[in-house]
Parts: sequence; C-alpha cells; structure tokens
Amino acid sequence: MKKEPLLIVKIGGQLLEREVELSGLLDEVVAYPGPQLLVHGGGKKATELAQRLGLEVQMIAGRRVTDAASLEIAAMVYAGWYNKRLVAQLQGRGQTALGLCGADLDLIRCRKRAPQPVDYGWVGDIEAVEVGALLPLLRAGICPVFSAITHDGKGQLLNTNADTIATQLAIALAPHFAVDLRYCLELPGVLVEVDQPESQLARLNQSDYRDLLRSGQIKGGMIPKLDNAFRAHQQSVSTVRIGNPHSLFNQSATQIC
Amino acid sequence: MKKEPLLIVKIGGQLLEREVELSGLLDEVVAYPGPQLLVHGGGKKATELAQRLGLEVQMIAGRRVTDAASLEIAAMVYAGWYNKRLVAQLQGRGQTALGLCGADLDLIRCRKRAPQPVDYGWVGDIEAVEVGALLPLLRAGICPVFSAITHDGKGQLLNTNADTIATQLAIALAPHFAVDLRYCLELPGVLVEVDQPESQLARLNQSDYRDLLRSGQIKGGMIPKLDNAFRAHQQSVSTVRIGNPHSLFNQSATQIC
Repeated sequence: MKKEPLLIVKIGGQLLEREVELSGLLDEVVAYPGPQLLVHGGGKKATELAQRLGLEVQMIAGRRVTDAASLEIAAMVYAGWYNKRLVAQLQGRGQTALGLCGADLDLIRCRKRAPQPVDYGWVGDIEAVEVGALLPLLRAGICPVFSAITHDGKGQLLNTNADTIATQLAIALAPHFAVDLRYCLELPGVLVEVDQPESQLARLNQSDYRDLLRSGQIKGGMIPKLDNAFRAHQQSVSTVRIGNPHSLFNQSATQIC
Repeated sequence: MKKEPLLIVKIGGQLLEREVELSGLLDEVVAYPGPQLLVHGGGKKATELAQRLGLEVQMIAGRRVTDAASLEIAAMVYAGWYNKRLVAQLQGRGQTALGLCGADLDLIRCRKRAPQPVDYGWVGDIEAVEVGALLPLLRAGICPVFSAITHDGKGQLLNTNADTIATQLAIALAPHFAVDLRYCLELPGVLVEVDQPESQLARLNQSDYRDLLRSGQIKGGMIPKLDNAFRAHQQSVSTVRIGNPHSLFNQSATQIC
C-alpha cells in the first residue's frame, strides 16, 4: 500500500523573525496535501535575550554551551514564545496545531552529553523517539509543532539541536508515512560558493558531498545540517530537501539523493 | 453512574519558585487516585524578567497591562520555562504529561478585552473552552498542564488569568468527571485576618463571603479568586478548596460550600 505523504519542515531561527517570509511559509505548509509536522529552534533570539540580560553566551566550535541560565532562556524562547506563536498562527489559518517539546508525552528522551572532552552543559543527545502518540494526531490532521527542547526522563529539561530533532522524527515516522523532509533556512539551497546563488546545487549525493567536504567548499553550520540530511536519506525518508521558503515549495531547493 | 474523580490544581506563581514545596505538591498530585490536570501562571517571574530587561510593568487596579513586550515575556515564562519544567518534573515521577496553552488544539479561545474603559492590552477573556480533545487524554491517564496563555483563533496569543482558566476548565469538565478543584497558593486557606493563620476559615459559603466582603475583611487578589471559586461551586464542580500544598492534601484547606 502506498504510504500517505507527511511534510516535516525544520524552520531555521532566522526565519522565525521574518514575519512576511514566515507567513508565506505557513501558508504553504497548511496547503500541503497530507499531514504536516514542524520543528523549530530560535537560537538567534535566545542569544539576543541572553545578551540583553547581560549573560555571557559561550560558544565552542560553533556550538552553544548551555548553562542553567541558557537552558531557561532556550526553554522560554523556543518552547514559549516561538512555539506558541507558531501554534496560534496555524490555528489562525484553520489548521489545528499542538505545540510540543520532547518532554511532552515523553516523545523525545535524551541523555545529557558527557562533560568530556567538552562540557556543553544542559545539552541532550537523543536516545529514544517515541512516535506512537503522534500517529493518531497526524492521522486526525493535527499539526505537531516541536521546539528544540527535550528531557532526560528524570525531571531535567535539555537543549537539543533542532535539525537533529527533525531528522530523528523523520526517521522514526518513515515506517508510517512517505516522509517529505525539508530543512528551511535563508539560503535557496546548498551553495558551492558562499554568497553566490548561481552556485546552488540542484541535487547532492553522498559522493559529491565527500568531495566538497574534502575541498573545503562546504563548511561551518552546513556540515552538521548535511550530515543530518544524508542520515535521513539513508534511513528511508522519502525526500530530503534544503532551501528557503520560496525554493522549497517551487521545487528549486537542493535535493539530497 | 458515579463519575470518576478528576483533580484540577491551580498552582500559584510564588509556589513555582519554591523547589521543595513544589516538589511535595507534585508528589501529592501524581499520587491522586484519578486523572489530574494542572494550571499555572508565573506572574512573579514575568515581572522580574521584565524588570531585568528594563521594561516598565504597568499595573491598573492590581492587574497587569499586557503590551507586546509583556505578552512575549508572559508566553516565554509561562508557556516556555514553567510549563515545560512542570512537564519534565511530572515525567520524572513516571506521570505522562502534556504541556498546553489555550492555543493548542484551539482548547481555550478568547476575545481580546475591549480597550474601554481601561486598555489592558493583549489580555483575553474566555469565549469558549473546548474539552473534547482533553477527554481521551485524561481517560488515558495523561496529565494536561495548562499555562495561562490563550489565543483569539485569528493568530494572536493573549494573556489570560490562570485562576479563571482553572475555573472554566473545571466547569467544562464537570459533566464528565467529579471535579475536585484546588487553588494552591502560599496561604493555608482563606484568612479573615491577614497574617493570622488561626483566623483561617474551614468552610466558606456565599452568604458569609458577602458579609466578609461588606466588612472589608476580604480584599485584594483574594476577591477575584473567591469569585472564581464560587462560580465553580455553583456550576457543578464537586469540591472547591483554597489552600497551600500542605493544607490542600491534609483536608485542612478552606472549602467553598
């Protein structure tokens, strides 16, 4: 039996602050012919709030260190403001939505990352994704909206990468749906030359990705994103694309193959 | 047929910051012989965060004015930090929990309060409580945890009084359960003389309440709380009590009758 398509969109933190683009994206999401699931972070605003509060934001190798104050800010910004605003905006479009974090219904259980070799603080690496409770919601046409907050099952909230959450949810839902996973950011797709839109790749396979990594043409935050994208592609997620709200819905985004 | 008991606890904002008392309260909640539902605010911390950000907190007649910045703070503190922390703490006790606001599943729809005679900003008065989606959750033993954030159904989040949310949920659930509604605050119950615990009332009926209002012995924030409590009592909520985590679970809290 042909599986029903399920749209999973990971919304990048920059987009959450761009009212017009975000609104256009949500219009496309609710028009999708099948159930939808959103995942979002909000790191940019979390950093800004920490700075306004005079807190030091510590980064190691491009990754945020989550001390107790940073965890509180992440939970507030991701699970509070952005999450509930997205839910209200979907409801305003007639789409029933449910805002979630990994602690809700024990959906995403994590292990606090070991403090060696680098202590990232209250950061969680995913141990178990339990989609049983999501299936009846998706089949009833309810759009789950996940913020990038999880827990350890023992009472502790944890900060978890939103790309990884989207990837692991896509993999866990792939046995049940033809998952159409889209990582939505500011760029129209994967660019070979930074700031040169014409260098955008229409498709990217594992072998070309390895070459681009070796030549240093793909770097920084795009690497963990592409690692996630290829992981999803290799684990039965039907389609995996990277792009912006425009390219992802006019089929010009980069497709992982 | 005898209705199953349902515990609804409104947790006051002061308690949310007292780790030991809150922990004891959650232990009692999960030990309750029937489904449970929590409602919480967090105004104290919202005020503190606004002050740390250098924002002016405007109060009119003891009620917060919710401008755009205050709404964002309320959503962050209530729906983000406190809500998800409570969910994680319940999960840590083996109690499956689901953090919600009124926008989720369109559970609590509000109308923005008219700006005349006083403009309270982004404050919502409850228009509709839709408990249909809650019934299967409660019957499956899932504890919904409501933050005091709602929406207007058109995409706008709103700030709504947590006591009123607890009251309206209790009334809406009363046809389905024998609702045991408890407003949990710092006081052991309703006191006739402020700061004199021995003046606590074991029971309070409408006629005595009117006398105490007339004599000025009950005042301030206790008045809207008691108005809510009597509204619940008059509308088929089985038991209504006001007290602290200790008195509410050793039967010494004030009972509305």
